[in-house]
Amino acid sequence: RMDCQTDDTGSLTPMELYEKLSAQGDKVRTLKTEKAPKPDIDAAVQLLVKLKLEYKTATGQDYKAGCPPSDGPTLQDNGPSVTEGEDLVNPWNVTTTSAKGVDYDKLIVRFGSSKIDQELVDRIERVSGQKPHRFLRRGIFFSHRDMHQVLDAYESKKSFYLYTGRGPSSEAMHVGHLIPFIFTKWLQDVFDVPLVIQLTDDEKYLWKDLSVEECHRYAVENAKDIIACGFDINKTFIFSDLDYMGSSPGFYRNVVKIQKHVTFNQVKGIFGFTDSDCIGKISFPAIQAAPSFSTSFPQIFNGRKDVQCLIPCAIDQDPYFRMTRDVAPRIGYPKPALLHSTFFPALQGAQSKMSASDPNSSIFLTDTPKQIKNKINKHAFSGGKDTIEEHRKYGGDPDVDVSFMYLTFFLEDDEQLDKIRQDYTSGVLLTGELKKRLIDTLQPMISAHQQRRKLVTDEMVQQFMTSRPLDFNY
Amino acid sequence: RMDCQTDDTGSLTPMELYEKLSAQGDKVRTLKTEKAPKPDIDAAVQLLVKLKLEYKTATGQDYKAGCPPSDGPTLQDNGPSVTEGEDLVNPWNVTTTSAKGVDYDKLIVRFGSSKIDQELVDRIERVSGQKPHRFLRRGIFFSHRDMHQVLDAYESKKSFYLYTGRGPSSEAMHVGHLIPFIFTKWLQDVFDVPLVIQLTDDEKYLWKDLSVEECHRYAVENAKDIIACGFDINKTFIFSDLDYMGSSPGFYRNVVKIQKHVTFNQVKGIFGFTDSDCIGKISFPAIQAAPSFSTSFPQIFNGRKDVQCLIPCAIDQDPYFRMTRDVAPRIGYPKPALLHSTFFPALQGAQSKMSASDPNSSIFLTDTPKQIKNKINKHAFSGGKDTIEEHRKYGGDPDVDVSFMYLTFFLEDDEQLDKIRQDYTSGVLLTGELKKRLIDTLQPMISAHQQRRKLVTDEMVQQFMTSRPLDFNY
Repeated sequence: RMDCQTDDTGSLTPMELYEKLSAQGDKVRTLKTEKAPKPDIDAAVQLLVKLKLEYKTATGQDYKAGCPPSDGPTLQDNGPSVTEGEDLVNPWNVTTTSAKGVDYDKLIVRFGSSKIDQELVDRIERVSGQKPHRFLRRGIFFSHRDMHQVLDAYESKKSFYLYTGRGPSSEAMHVGHLIPFIFTKWLQDVFDVPLVIQLTDDEKYLWKDLSVEECHRYAVENAKDIIACGFDINKTFIFSDLDYMGSSPGFYRNVVKIQKHVTFNQVKGIFGFTDSDCIGKISFPAIQAAPSFSTSFPQIFNGRKDVQCLIPCAIDQDPYFRMTRDVAPRIGYPKPALLHSTFFPALQGAQSKMSASDPNSSIFLTDTPKQIKNKINKHAFSGGKDTIEEHRKYGGDPDVDVSFMYLTFFLEDDEQLDKIRQDYTSGVLLTGELKKRLIDTLQPMISAHQQRRKLVTDEMVQQFMTSRPLDFNY
Repeated sequence: RMDCQTDDTGSLTPMELYEKLSAQGDKVRTLKTEKAPKPDIDAAVQLLVKLKLEYKTATGQDYKAGCPPSDGPTLQDNGPSVTEGEDLVNPWNVTTTSAKGVDYDKLIVRFGSSKIDQELVDRIERVSGQKPHRFLRRGIFFSHRDMHQVLDAYESKKSFYLYTGRGPSSEAMHVGHLIPFIFTKWLQDVFDVPLVIQLTDDEKYLWKDLSVEECHRYAVENAKDIIACGFDINKTFIFSDLDYMGSSPGFYRNVVKIQKHVTFNQVKGIFGFTDSDCIGKISFPAIQAAPSFSTSFPQIFNGRKDVQCLIPCAIDQDPYFRMTRDVAPRIGYPKPALLHSTFFPALQGAQSKMSASDPNSSIFLTDTPKQIKNKINKHAFSGGKDTIEEHRKYGGDPDVDVSFMYLTFFLEDDEQLDKIRQDYTSGVLLTGELKKRLIDTLQPMISAHQQRRKLVTDEMVQQFMTSRPLDFNY
């Protein structure tokens, strides 16, 4: 059900798209035959994929070489399809058949985003004057859109703001949910910028069998865990959609502006909605898009409409923001920039995202040290061999080992991590020992989180969630 | 493009609907063959029409006797169709081929509403203790839903509230736009109940080539004309959607609740939306529905969710409220009751609604006495004969004469109106004389409106449009 909406074009007729596609197909074949440099082929393939998706969005049909678009009736309710062997990545589903997880390089090509390469990591270090966060050093935030533009502006004293969010579908948050918040806090600290955090309780009401009141309560509970990540209360606004939509005319006006510029055909193409979906789901993407524009927060930006937004999020949220970037110029706003993270794997392996409803699929922020230990020992998928003898002889595979993957997320020390990788690969380090390293890393981290969460008072939550000016020197 | 959504059913499969339809078709044929009483045939036809529309909504296909529903792909983007010879009536278009205007008795059958008969008019007189408004005496408000229920409750001291509205697409309002407001003011006076008036500036932004700011400005300008109708400032809340959606969490929560319970298939069936429509249009019906529920105005009703709503409106708005009544029980709210008016004819004749963009299509609230006189003399379609001699001999036809129609709306005295009808029909009254009667009625009426509008201060507008408690003894 994954599909993408591109940023540009949009005004071509199906026949023009068809002709452009045919030409691009020829170009790709020529480049391959001529054994052109890989980046050239990649770029051409990327454009081809983009055009194919646009073609499908425009006509409802798959592009077929030699078959020009017909004017006849198009099928509905098929939703966008996935090519066999491709990973499925959208805001509601991520599946892959590889134990190593989703192929992120392929995803960059399919989504039309850019890789966070060493040059960009170095530049972030230079501009911020800080050592890059381990998520950057290790490719956990691996893809971006327009990050160089954000840094260009920042270097010429033109600041930006951060926007991230969470869908509060239950009280229970797991360590994976912390990834965007940990990274966003780092960005806030090193760039000293304001931050808005959207809790999409309205989305959860629309998608889940929950009452409005339950969803709102989950939003407030989740806000406590988010606050416990250490955000600066003077620079951070956390909001529930159910509350903020009904208390900010600026926000609603942007929602309506976005809703005017996105058709059902487009959200069908991007999100796979069907005619049987409720109109709330169909119009929701505009609500997740709206915080990307500074006029949605007049209390923070004094009505300025040119403050650029930078969105750190997991790559599965990108479809929302491809749509947002498509709409932005048409309503007179700058396109938001993005930083995309990989997925945090389930304890059982990297084939799927974790589920908040399965307590054994991850480490929850409420787990006791004992639960953490037991879960890791019992459920963390191992890349080790079946017997100690074999393991000593052949070594383990860190690339499919969930304990090792979790350490790449949470163990700060690069040298230690590298040593663990080497020792595990060589067979010096046994699975039990690797798991112990993870347990020793997570137990104090979760305990510390729980301590900080206890210190989050109702007044603090109230203050974070009150619409108000933030410290922001533009 | 007219189509209706019924209140009940909804859980039948296409095949069950098909079988029910076949049976109902047989029943209608039998009744007609047997020359059954007209009310019986009407009721059976009404159910048949309802089922056909449900079938189309469920399958996307027109019902065809002998052709069961297929599982194959259904066509999209056709929109609901109108049977040949039927009037087209929906919120954006009203057309008819008859000079007398839309066939309202047929519309009652098609829409599944109830006729406002003499018994109901008498009952309103009894319960209110007031002579019924001329719009009731003359069948201008001709159709209703659940008005008896409203009166039952009112008699046992259970009050209700009124809700009406306007789409502010320009500054210019014409006399036809006053119809719902004149009648609503009367209802407010005789029943002593609170009133909410929705100005759908968001809708106008979505449908027209206007900016958000323009639509909001029109809303405020239109509010002045509405206030000039004499509403009680202590019992009336006038709101712009663009403002109120962003200042009332209660309102937005109801919008989301409604949006969760209406599918794209449904709004496609009801309103004729297509896949090319923007997601704002597709979700808008929930915004017009929300004021039908008292929890949308916690400041007025203290969070009570059981205060019934009565909606006086032109019949073209009924599709919104059929949808609303369908959703109401599923989200735990009472269904709104309705009072439907006929359309106010254009000066050129009853074949279509007036257009605010054609200054000669109606009398505007800003017209001078001279403009009124000239427009009526020059543009009002006449039911008179070509020459005075013929007119004296054969008489005129008041049923197609726009000046006479306008008098039925605005001349208070029943006896005078009846005498005019008789004299015009007999040929005693000439077209010029009839037009003079209308000019003499409208000139002082419009002047008085203009005087009252001048007295509407910015502070009054501000007060009417401020979310606040109203005088309401429940």
